Amino acid sequence: MVKITLIGSGNLGTQLGLSLVKNGYEIVQVFSRSIENATLLAEKLNSKAVDDLNQLVDTDIAIISVNDDSISSISKLVNFPQLHTSGTISMNDLNQKYPVGVFYPLQTFSKNTNVNFNQIPICIEASTPDFLKEIKKIAKTLSNKVYYMDENKRAKLHLSAVIACNFSNLMYQFADEICEENEIPFEILYSLIEETSHKIKKSRPINAQTGPAKRSDRKTIENHLKLIKNKPELFDVYNILTKSIINRK
Amino acid sequence: MVKITLIGSGNLGTQLGLSLVKNGYEIVQVFSRSIENATLLAEKLNSKAVDDLNQLVDTDIAIISVNDDSISSISKLVNFPQLHTSGTISMNDLNQKYPVGVFYPLQTFSKNTNVNFNQIPICIEASTPDFLKEIKKIAKTLSNKVYYMDENKRAKLHLSAVIACNFSNLMYQFADEICEENEIPFEILYSLIEETSHKIKKSRPINAQTGPAKRSDRKTIENHLKLIKNKPELFDVYNILTKSIINRK
Repeated sequence: MVKITLIGSGNLGTQLGLSLVKNGYEIVQVFSRSIENATLLAEKLNSKAVDDLNQLVDTDIAIISVNDDSISSISKLVNFPQLHTSGTISMNDLNQKYPVGVFYPLQTFSKNTNVNFNQIPICIEASTPDFLKEIKKIAKTLSNKVYYMDENKRAKLHLSAVIACNFSNLMYQFADEICEENEIPFEILYSLIEETSHKIKKSRPINAQTGPAKRSDRKTIENHLKLIKNKPELFDVYNILTKSIINRK
Repeated sequence: MVKITLIGSGNLGTQLGLSLVKNGYEIVQVFSRSIENATLLAEKLNSKAVDDLNQLVDTDIAIISVNDDSISSISKLVNFPQLHTSGTISMNDLNQKYPVGVFYPLQTFSKNTNVNFNQIPICIEASTPDFLKEIKKIAKTLSNKVYYMDENKRAKLHLSAVIACNFSNLMYQFADEICEENEIPFEILYSLIEETSHKIKKSRPINAQTGPAKRSDRKTIENHLKLIKNKPELFDVYNILTKSIINRK
């Protein structure tokens, strides 16, 4: 079985490491700048903790799962084939002396919420056909949904993901804040939020839209704006998004 | 069993009628301004179609499920106890000669997607204790989640629902549009969208946030803005929402 080095112990690195080990891969070493973090994860993966890149032993592949800004500089110190897990960075930013690639799992990861990679799409790319084959094999072991995707498409997909995930979550935050201020239990919104996220599988989002903006119900829109007139940030967000829904009817 | 008149044959009226009949209630008559729509729904409910409010026979209760703007004028012509299903309208806008109330199911409804009311929160209010009891009984037959909620709280909840549901769906629309333009199958985003909507049940939305804005990853943010520089509407939305996430860290 392929021997792997895991570089980075963040949300994605943690989940990826756990899933790889579960699927029989050996994580030879875990690197983190903080030896505490490296150790914490290495223990879970039955692996060795390292905080100095010069101490890495060569493995078949290194998975670089660190902040986008650090990928290139870290890669220079990794002297064997490697891939990164970023949605936005070019694979050409990796150490070109070795086969390089991308392994981008499209999901929102938390350290303490274990995920099942099975249903998570993994977008892959590689500098050589052989390395692509190797990456594809690992991806297929973890997930049923493996897509080949070049850099340009991956960047567009990452943008879509930020909008669909992070911006939606911001909407949940706004709703949570209003509920809290008015002593309404936020859980009242759970089934609505869930149904909204399910509906788009049955019809495209534009056809699933409902609500006052969709109906051009200006009276309700005005009432809502009155309720948030003392919250300039939310007021602006409400206005711009309402106009956008009205415009695209 | 209580005999019911259904006024309105829109998304919510349709789903509510189907669920009431399924739970053993008799829908005596269905009113719609369009006799075609009234007939279409009446047939499904084994009921009578009516397009003239003066022809209504008295029943125990009328459920007025029409556009907010029409509730008050329609209510004047309904001469028996009644409730509306709106998140925003006061129950005092209903015909005060009779017991009146509110029965607001918090969900996004489509005519052709049948929903299970069981998990849908229903917010109720009434002008008399007896009528409240009656409404509560109907609500509890349909749903496990019945909340008493006065007008002010209901308005705030409705605002939260619009933000959490309609605005999130707009985010899905933006993502869908980017995917379509770039020949990326939108279904790649399904599991991400679903996980985002599930995560908030485990921790509050502010703690579930991820992504470039949360990490203050300005390079990625700048790259995204470059990708949408020819889409002024999305450009503005991206900017304002990114700033909002950064501000509330």
